[in-house]
Amino acid sequence: MTLNVFKIGGSIINHSDSLEHFLHSFCSCTEPKILVHGGGNQANEWMQQLQLPVKMHEGRRITDKTTLRIAVMVYAGWINKTLVAALGARGCKAIGLSGADGFSIPAVKRNPHPIDFGYVGDINASTVHVTFIQRLLDEGFVPVFAPITCDASGQLLNTNADTIACTLALAMKEKYKVTLRYLFDREGVYHDNGESPLPILSKNQYEQLRSRGIISDGMIPKIETALQALKYGVEKVTVGTTYIHL
Amino acid sequence: MTLNVFKIGGSIINHSDSLEHFLHSFCSCTEPKILVHGGGNQANEWMQQLQLPVKMHEGRRITDKTTLRIAVMVYAGWINKTLVAALGARGCKAIGLSGADGFSIPAVKRNPHPIDFGYVGDINASTVHVTFIQRLLDEGFVPVFAPITCDASGQLLNTNADTIACTLALAMKEKYKVTLRYLFDREGVYHDNGESPLPILSKNQYEQLRSRGIISDGMIPKIETALQALKYGVEKVTVGTTYIHL
Repeated sequence: MTLNVFKIGGSIINHSDSLEHFLHSFCSCTEPKILVHGGGNQANEWMQQLQLPVKMHEGRRITDKTTLRIAVMVYAGWINKTLVAALGARGCKAIGLSGADGFSIPAVKRNPHPIDFGYVGDINASTVHVTFIQRLLDEGFVPVFAPITCDASGQLLNTNADTIACTLALAMKEKYKVTLRYLFDREGVYHDNGESPLPILSKNQYEQLRSRGIISDGMIPKIETALQALKYGVEKVTVGTTYIHL
Repeated sequence: MTLNVFKIGGSIINHSDSLEHFLHSFCSCTEPKILVHGGGNQANEWMQQLQLPVKMHEGRRITDKTTLRIAVMVYAGWINKTLVAALGARGCKAIGLSGADGFSIPAVKRNPHPIDFGYVGDINASTVHVTFIQRLLDEGFVPVFAPITCDASGQLLNTNADTIACTLALAMKEKYKVTLRYLFDREGVYHDNGESPLPILSKNQYEQLRSRGIISDGMIPKIETALQALKYGVEKVTVGTTYIHL
């Protein structure tokens, strides 16, 4: 059976039209499915409102105690429950989870050397509680994961949502054929002169487009994660409408 | 089999000693159990930090859009996941839920007449998804409920945690003998000259102590809810160490 792991980010969540559109297509998928969401800039907006500094290192956020608290509140609280309630209203039996719930995605706090990113959790497909998630899917539930995890000591941690989606896809491939779908604010991956997104992006093509600066910034880790997922056995990976190939 | 429904409030959650003590005793209960938590003044503290006015009517909070968002963030986000992670670290398979998750506790937005309390959800034991909760319990999970619900349209709502605990206890009595335990910042219910809490409080005694002003304020709705629970079939109800009797 095919399991669909969808990942949506802030660009979809924060725009009611895109969100409506997504929820409609997500609910029309009749195969088993999991939703993983990020939160984009909502956490930063709260930080600003509270006049707290957003700490970054080379474009990556440093999660101090206050940032963690706001991340948990925004991601596992507001965004997660808003999505669960919206899905429920559409007849989709959604259950909001973090990696802490049922200790479904055990994490380890990232080594503070050479750079201390603070309360950030690294995760591994081999420790995901596959049986727990499978049981929920078997009973027709739709797990909705916030990008929050915890370690064995009970410390909550912030974990990248793209990574959670990839890790869940890899963990669940033991039981299902898995399709991993990254959805974001563009239709897919574009060539430089393309008006419509590429239907397929191969690893070679990606490396060329990257070296020419056409694929840059946030798209790089996304496609790298997609390639990792394919390399380790996820059946299909799409970034928007673009199929990624090895 | 006996199911234990524990309810803890902000006075326990906000003090690390009381919380440690509670978590220890909760984990040592080997029977099936559910935890319902409030959040006390944490939501108010966030409102203050954001310089938002806390709106009240006769001592009861009015939940406008911003208050709801903060309640969801604090209760279903920070407090719920902190408790789940702390229980997980103690080997307790906790799963954080709101009434929206699996639409486990369907709610109806309170009638705005005569007083509009805003985004407040009223709930009913007859519509609780008993099978879903029972399934989790059967598999050894410990549901941890935040006092957030939603209605059929997907609107998130704020619901009193004491009421959630009572409603869950009443709903689950179809399948279990239920003990409902309200834990708070005092050891139990006190008589006027008592140095130790009353072991038992009957309905008659309660009415006398209430008319003499010895039981007052926040204890009144708590004991009223306890009496309701007993009246409709919950096996045992305790407020702290005090057993409530009809």
